[in-house]
Amino acid sequence: MNKLPLIVIGGSSDRNQETMGAFQEFPQVEAGRLYNKLTVRPSSLEVIPAVVEKAVRTSIYGRPGSCYIDIPGDFVNLQVNKSSVKYVECCLPPPISMAKQSAVSEAASIIAHSKQPLLIIGKGAAYSHAENNIRKLVDLCGLPFLPTPMAKGVVPDNHPNCVAAARSTALQYADVIILLGARLNWILHFGLPPRFRQEVKVIQIDICAEELGNNVRPAASLLGDINTVTKQLLEEFSKRPWKYPSSSQWWKRLREKIMNNEEKSKGLELQKSLPMNYYTVFRHIRELIPRDCILVSEGANTMDIGRTMLPNYHPRQRLDAGTFGTMGVGLGFAIAAAMVAKDRTPEKRVICIEGDSAFGFSGMELETICRYKLPILIIVVNNNGIYTGLDTDAWKEMLKFGEPATCIPPVSLLPNSHYEQIMSAFGGKGYFVKTPEELQNALKASLADEQTPSLINVMIDPRSERKKQEFPWLTRSNM
Amino acid sequence: MNKLPLIVIGGSSDRNQETMGAFQEFPQVEAGRLYNKLTVRPSSLEVIPAVVEKAVRTSIYGRPGSCYIDIPGDFVNLQVNKSSVKYVECCLPPPISMAKQSAVSEAASIIAHSKQPLLIIGKGAAYSHAENNIRKLVDLCGLPFLPTPMAKGVVPDNHPNCVAAARSTALQYADVIILLGARLNWILHFGLPPRFRQEVKVIQIDICAEELGNNVRPAASLLGDINTVTKQLLEEFSKRPWKYPSSSQWWKRLREKIMNNEEKSKGLELQKSLPMNYYTVFRHIRELIPRDCILVSEGANTMDIGRTMLPNYHPRQRLDAGTFGTMGVGLGFAIAAAMVAKDRTPEKRVICIEGDSAFGFSGMELETICRYKLPILIIVVNNNGIYTGLDTDAWKEMLKFGEPATCIPPVSLLPNSHYEQIMSAFGGKGYFVKTPEELQNALKASLADEQTPSLINVMIDPRSERKKQEFPWLTRSNM
Amino acid sequence: MNKLPLIVIGGSSDRNQETMGAFQEFPQVEAGRLYNKLTVRPSSLEVIPAVVEKAVRTSIYGRPGSCYIDIPGDFVNLQVNKSSVKYVECCLPPPISMAKQSAVSEAASIIAHSKQPLLIIGKGAAYSHAENNIRKLVDLCGLPFLPTPMAKGVVPDNHPNCVAAARSTALQYADVIILLGARLNWILHFGLPPRFRQEVKVIQIDICAEELGNNVRPAASLLGDINTVTKQLLEEFSKRPWKYPSSSQWWKRLREKIMNNEEKSKGLELQKSLPMNYYTVFRHIRELIPRDCILVSEGANTMDIGRTMLPNYHPRQRLDAGTFGTMGVGLGFAIAAAMVAKDRTPEKRVICIEGDSAFGFSGMELETICRYKLPILIIVVNNNGIYTGLDTDAWKEMLKFGEPATCIPPVSLLPNSHYEQIMSAFGGKGYFVKTPEELQNALKASLADEQTPSLINVMIDPRSERKKQEFPWLTRSNM
Amino acid sequence: MNKLPLIVIGGSSDRNQETMGAFQEFPQVEAGRLYNKLTVRPSSLEVIPAVVEKAVRTSIYGRPGSCYIDIPGDFVNLQVNKSSVKYVECCLPPPISMAKQSAVSEAASIIAHSKQPLLIIGKGAAYSHAENNIRKLVDLCGLPFLPTPMAKGVVPDNHPNCVAAARSTALQYADVIILLGARLNWILHFGLPPRFRQEVKVIQIDICAEELGNNVRPAASLLGDINTVTKQLLEEFSKRPWKYPSSSQWWKRLREKIMNNEEKSKGLELQKSLPMNYYTVFRHIRELIPRDCILVSEGANTMDIGRTMLPNYHPRQRLDAGTFGTMGVGLGFAIAAAMVAKDRTPEKRVICIEGDSAFGFSGMELETICRYKLPILIIVVNNNGIYTGLDTDAWKEMLKFGEPATCIPPVSLLPNSHYEQIMSAFGGKGYFVKTPEELQNALKASLADEQTPSLINVMIDPRSERKKQEFPWLTRSNM
Repeated sequence: MNKLPLIVIGGSSDRNQETMGAFQEFPQVEAGRLYNKLTVRPSSLEVIPAVVEKAVRTSIYGRPGSCYIDIPGDFVNLQVNKSSVKYVECCLPPPISMAKQSAVSEAASIIAHSKQPLLIIGKGAAYSHAENNIRKLVDLCGLPFLPTPMAKGVVPDNHPNCVAAARSTALQYADVIILLGARLNWILHFGLPPRFRQEVKVIQIDICAEELGNNVRPAASLLGDINTVTKQLLEEFSKRPWKYPSSSQWWKRLREKIMNNEEKSKGLELQKSLPMNYYTVFRHIRELIPRDCILVSEGANTMDIGRTMLPNYHPRQRLDAGTFGTMGVGLGFAIAAAMVAKDRTPEKRVICIEGDSAFGFSGMELETICRYKLPILIIVVNNNGIYTGLDTDAWKEMLKFGEPATCIPPVSLLPNSHYEQIMSAFGGKGYFVKTPEELQNALKASLADEQTPSLINVMIDPRSERKKQEFPWLTRSNM
Repeated sequence: MNKLPLIVIGGSSDRNQETMGAFQEFPQVEAGRLYNKLTVRPSSLEVIPAVVEKAVRTSIYGRPGSCYIDIPGDFVNLQVNKSSVKYVECCLPPPISMAKQSAVSEAASIIAHSKQPLLIIGKGAAYSHAENNIRKLVDLCGLPFLPTPMAKGVVPDNHPNCVAAARSTALQYADVIILLGARLNWILHFGLPPRFRQEVKVIQIDICAEELGNNVRPAASLLGDINTVTKQLLEEFSKRPWKYPSSSQWWKRLREKIMNNEEKSKGLELQKSLPMNYYTVFRHIRELIPRDCILVSEGANTMDIGRTMLPNYHPRQRLDAGTFGTMGVGLGFAIAAAMVAKDRTPEKRVICIEGDSAFGFSGMELETICRYKLPILIIVVNNNGIYTGLDTDAWKEMLKFGEPATCIPPVSLLPNSHYEQIMSAFGGKGYFVKTPEELQNALKASLADEQTPSLINVMIDPRSERKKQEFPWLTRSNM
Repeated sequence: MNKLPLIVIGGSSDRNQETMGAFQEFPQVEAGRLYNKLTVRPSSLEVIPAVVEKAVRTSIYGRPGSCYIDIPGDFVNLQVNKSSVKYVECCLPPPISMAKQSAVSEAASIIAHSKQPLLIIGKGAAYSHAENNIRKLVDLCGLPFLPTPMAKGVVPDNHPNCVAAARSTALQYADVIILLGARLNWILHFGLPPRFRQEVKVIQIDICAEELGNNVRPAASLLGDINTVTKQLLEEFSKRPWKYPSSSQWWKRLREKIMNNEEKSKGLELQKSLPMNYYTVFRHIRELIPRDCILVSEGANTMDIGRTMLPNYHPRQRLDAGTFGTMGVGLGFAIAAAMVAKDRTPEKRVICIEGDSAFGFSGMELETICRYKLPILIIVVNNNGIYTGLDTDAWKEMLKFGEPATCIPPVSLLPNSHYEQIMSAFGGKGYFVKTPEELQNALKASLADEQTPSLINVMIDPRSERKKQEFPWLTRSNM
Repeated sequence: MNKLPLIVIGGSSDRNQETMGAFQEFPQVEAGRLYNKLTVRPSSLEVIPAVVEKAVRTSIYGRPGSCYIDIPGDFVNLQVNKSSVKYVECCLPPPISMAKQSAVSEAASIIAHSKQPLLIIGKGAAYSHAENNIRKLVDLCGLPFLPTPMAKGVVPDNHPNCVAAARSTALQYADVIILLGARLNWILHFGLPPRFRQEVKVIQIDICAEELGNNVRPAASLLGDINTVTKQLLEEFSKRPWKYPSSSQWWKRLREKIMNNEEKSKGLELQKSLPMNYYTVFRHIRELIPRDCILVSEGANTMDIGRTMLPNYHPRQRLDAGTFGTMGVGLGFAIAAAMVAKDRTPEKRVICIEGDSAFGFSGMELETICRYKLPILIIVVNNNGIYTGLDTDAWKEMLKFGEPATCIPPVSLLPNSHYEQIMSAFGGKGYFVKTPEELQNALKASLADEQTPSLINVMIDPRSERKKQEFPWLTRSNM
């Protein structure tokens, strides 16, 4: 198991010019404080190895996070005697902790008495490489499970116990929830009614003590490494075997809901009208991309609908906007994933599915992608706007008559932007597609070429939307 | 005179979800502290007008700067009784202060006794709309002057007293320097030897008391609004007339240096070899663009050489990377300038001259430019790299043999990137030019079309460089 | 004129132990950011003179404030070659700025048309040494004036135009207010109704541009050094003479209010009952202390009532809790004042009048006072509590019966604390007084001894209070 | 087991006066960021219970720390409908985590192969209530142990395996160190040579993952609750019994060193010369105070020598300056300890031993102690200075001749300060002692009176010092 640290290295002004108005003089260590587990400026060249070791270690030990190292400009050309450098070895792999046995027993007992259990798998489970044990737990206990966005694939989305297609129902009626490395934050509606039962029993499993008890008082708290605690639960259930009956009312209800939702999706997927809707687009993508690829995604509807339409079969192969829901991260994620894949698993393609608005934040990274010849496939699902695009005809009218710019709604984008031409501008391949056939052909061609970056710009109906949600009034936290 | 405030308005999480892990919950007011004169989160809808007034006022009063207002998400749909809102009027124009009369007299006396005077005009002079009075001062006293980058045009660059083409000499040998709204920071080499005389007398004129005396102990300090203090100096010199003789040795030396430097530039400008060098490109731009346009610029060599090659004839019509020297600001500046021009001076074109590396930071803003139909002309001076591009043939060899990505030097960019195609992807006009003729044609066509955004991608010699500097060993602060 | 800078020098951990858990390792520069105009850690021993110069200069230039310098522990024993040290001269005296002439004329015109004018003198007036000119202005124009707490003495409190004894009336009914270096913050009730007229015209004079327009849109804004702007006003009024008639209705109303309030005070002052009340105590102090002493004061009622009862006759001789209203500063202020007086004006006594609660914050500084033999006279006005003390008998009962500690109200203090014994513990003289005679004798003895620190602990009625305020419902901002 | 949270509640300005210059308006949440695990300002009265729960939970979960809650002033008088308040239950006790079994086995194996083992007990061991298991481990394995200052008493200091009296030797020559809840910071000389062997194997046991590996790469890392991990080690050693032979060379060396050091101490303890030295004073204190008391201590020599001279027999009964080494905390600690003891263990006396300099920071808290009738015994070990006091005669001479104050060395204090009179000033009992007999009598009288606070001011030789250290050149980190 390899943990990848996240270290940002920044350059700052020469030490002897501080307070004088040096080039880019700024309190950068201070500015990075709120964003990093550690921000540090080495006081001398000699201590850099020790500072880097500390940053790497801090980044991967405990709950992972980024660290910032600030390098004074004058270090670049400074020379020191090698013997004065404080060399250090790389840190040991992260230490592993387990939950207390009594808490494990208590949790198992609560689970065994549940009537409508639900396992929620969070990205902490993915980070701790807990996939094998969680899958065993699901199978052994017959538990319905639901992944959070970045935990998709820890157990494959096509596992029969996956109830992602009945998410709202599963959350709303579960009487016992096992929370494996997931936070009860806005993504999970804080664990509160009306999205959850008032009296739901939450078994919280987390690597971070301070996360336990947030928003909901748990029925049991298991502090430790997710993988190790899952193994503890497995051992417990091997001693006191228990399996949730697949014939239960709860399973019946969940399966009905799943079928119902899948039928609705299917109906949307199969619509033949043009321009295409989201569901049709994702259906074709799903049918043509390899199962073992790395999916990067961002956007509003694009990310939300894509999450339900594009299954993950392997852990740590879905990267999206994450806890902060920040747009603009997709291409950076894709580049990082492709660089790592290049070294380790060159056969895995990186496929990056972007809303047009999200793509606009950092689309210039196509230059980097082409420069490093990273064979990333980018698909821009283009509705000319944020959430919903403006009707193209209305736009044309408006622009024709020279309406003042302020008339353009702030969530609209330029219609018919040819994002694919940006890719070709840098030597990659670009495709502009409006029909299912064009989409299929573009996907096939892109995937067949394992050397060249490509971008497929898929024009969809600007009025295409998500299918109706059960909690539209809570849209602000409904991801 | 109109001062434009700089207010950033951010959205933050709902108030009642704080500490719960709300969507994008973050201490944003705190995060913005180091970057703003004021960062504030209104405690209620009712106080928003008062908070906005304070932010606007703080932004334009005293030394100008940005302010940040943080709006909780729940304010968006909140309603209050109109009568409970605390309405306030817009603030008065910024108050004006003057220097003490005795300091003015002292300054005038020092100037009148100078042997090798130099007037440095900073961007504070532009902000205070001091152009008319400064020009009168230059003419009345016959002073050689030098603008800092964003002060170009306060007095037109073609004024006979402008010694920008002899910058190093002027700084190095002046015995009295009048600093009008400029800081003695890295841009002015901190005012210290060897770039300045040890015993140089600095007359510092600034709106910000705390700026006076930084790095060099001034011979006289004049605190106040630049325009008003300049007027005070004019009045002083009308009482005690003094004019620096244009026949002096100092003027002779400066003029010789100017002629010498201009000849060198001319030599470079007129080179016919292909690919073009920087100087040839800027010569053609200079010859074809209107005098009264707004020039935006960023990049390393592109900004530095462009500053010397493209004169400004009007104040506040040059926007570049500024004090921090931060890349990526050019397109945002161009959009802001074009939006303001649209309302006030629609006849002024915005021309944005970018290095290819700088353009890579925010090139995606072309979408915004096209969406708002802003007739900005962007010129990318493309050398495939930062400072110097890699030789294209070497690149080809390297990429052909599948060298690992890490071999690409960090300051190189993809050769032959077709940035102009990004513009055409969004409906603007793109030109790819390699020869002087192509450049001339593209410039003419772009300038003739007053409705359409355009981008000219000018391929230059990757080995093209600045002409030799006198202080190469201080390159780190030689802007 | 001498400005005294305020520089805090802190020690921090050795540079080469940073990130290792060094002794008192902490981001001190960052921690001091919010409290200082400048916080800086010199990067080398060589730059310390330059850093100190910048800190001193920043502290006294513009609006004055404190600066923090952080010295790494290893600097203490570090040696460098003297020739490598960057020596700098001390900065010039603070630069002086003036208001624009047109704003001065406008202000004079508004004043000349006022019906019920009021001049408010703030501590900025004291800091700029404007006393002579302000007094001339008061006399020349016959203006009623009101000092803020730390501006008392800029014009002597016994000047016939001082309307401090009619403060609420003066604020509430003035139609034109000239604000000389005072902020419209909580101390001045934000300049808003009901404490001020809705349509009051405020002429704001301040050294800090960003202060102008806070809370109230001024009728005129004069930016500049208070003393210099006052001189400008004087010159204006010498050109267009104007004097507010002392026979006006407004003067009549103010004088009646003053007389009325003074009678009430007199009544309280002359009460003979024991224990004494605040007014009696202050009357005796007033009668015995020299006019030209430095008064330091803090506490709730002690500071508030003392401000009205103890006149100041000279500027910058009253130090109290100031803008932040923070308790615990009194003894530090007294020590600093006594150290400065020792060098410059050894004949001026420092008299520090403390509430018992305020004294409790830093009473241990008596050791410092005695160690440095500073002849400070401290008077603790002791009511056994904050605002009002608990009745001593009730206390005795309570304590006798072993009531749990939580019964003691949080604003009570131990009755009959013998603070004077702390002074004698360190070799100074202590007096415990309960009657007017004892108080008089103690004051006389203390003042007669010009070498020895002394403390008079004056027991007053725990139920003694301020006389009734007109705005009791705004007590939270009624200072 | 009860964990006590540390919550600071602060008052801040009224919400609707923010940005207006409200009373004590300040960004307090931001100001508290660096000092607290959580700093938060509730957005409404309704969420206060939830915010308090989160603060309490955050304070005691994981590595303990303080939290800050900021209450707007207007909340004090605000009323809300009870039904709208978001009530929450108190959080569960802190979750417990264990180390991975393989790490435990590895650690046991390293210990079992050690030649010169040493167990270092840190305050984390005390916080996790690990005393019983650690004592079992010491006894079972025959390990020499050393407590850090605030871990004294986890295993009683008189346990035969305690090698505190041979601290330097134990640290310097141990080949295997078991670090139980202690940081390798300045207090432990960073774990580095020359205070430690280059090749020492460190087994690090900590609740905080990010603490593991700091400064030294551990041979084994055990992440988890100290008590639980100790139990795991005990179980491991019960499976594979191992006991370090008390006849080893290492034990011989340690015992010799202990005996040698104790003899030196004894020599100093028994000195009869007057004034007394530190050792004599502590000997008498040790002989007379009850074993089961709470010892609070601060000062330089007083804390350092007191730590070696005054044994602890119970855990969590020694409070000193701690990791930061900050002076001024002693009386606050004593008050807090006495308040808790009052409720839970009224028979336990709090004895607070202070250097005279340390006492000077917050000696005024004697008022609080007397007000709450807390029977704390304070002993001021008074050498008239910091580290060493100035010779009294020299002082007298100096003061007599009116030497300027600046002649007093900064580490000197006023000689013969009668701190005991401060106690009597507030109604407690004060003793001034100069001889062993006086000290004995004062101690006996103070301890006999279980109701009254008392202070014994012990005059010692200003030239009294610590006995010679082996590492005087590392004095800066030798605590």
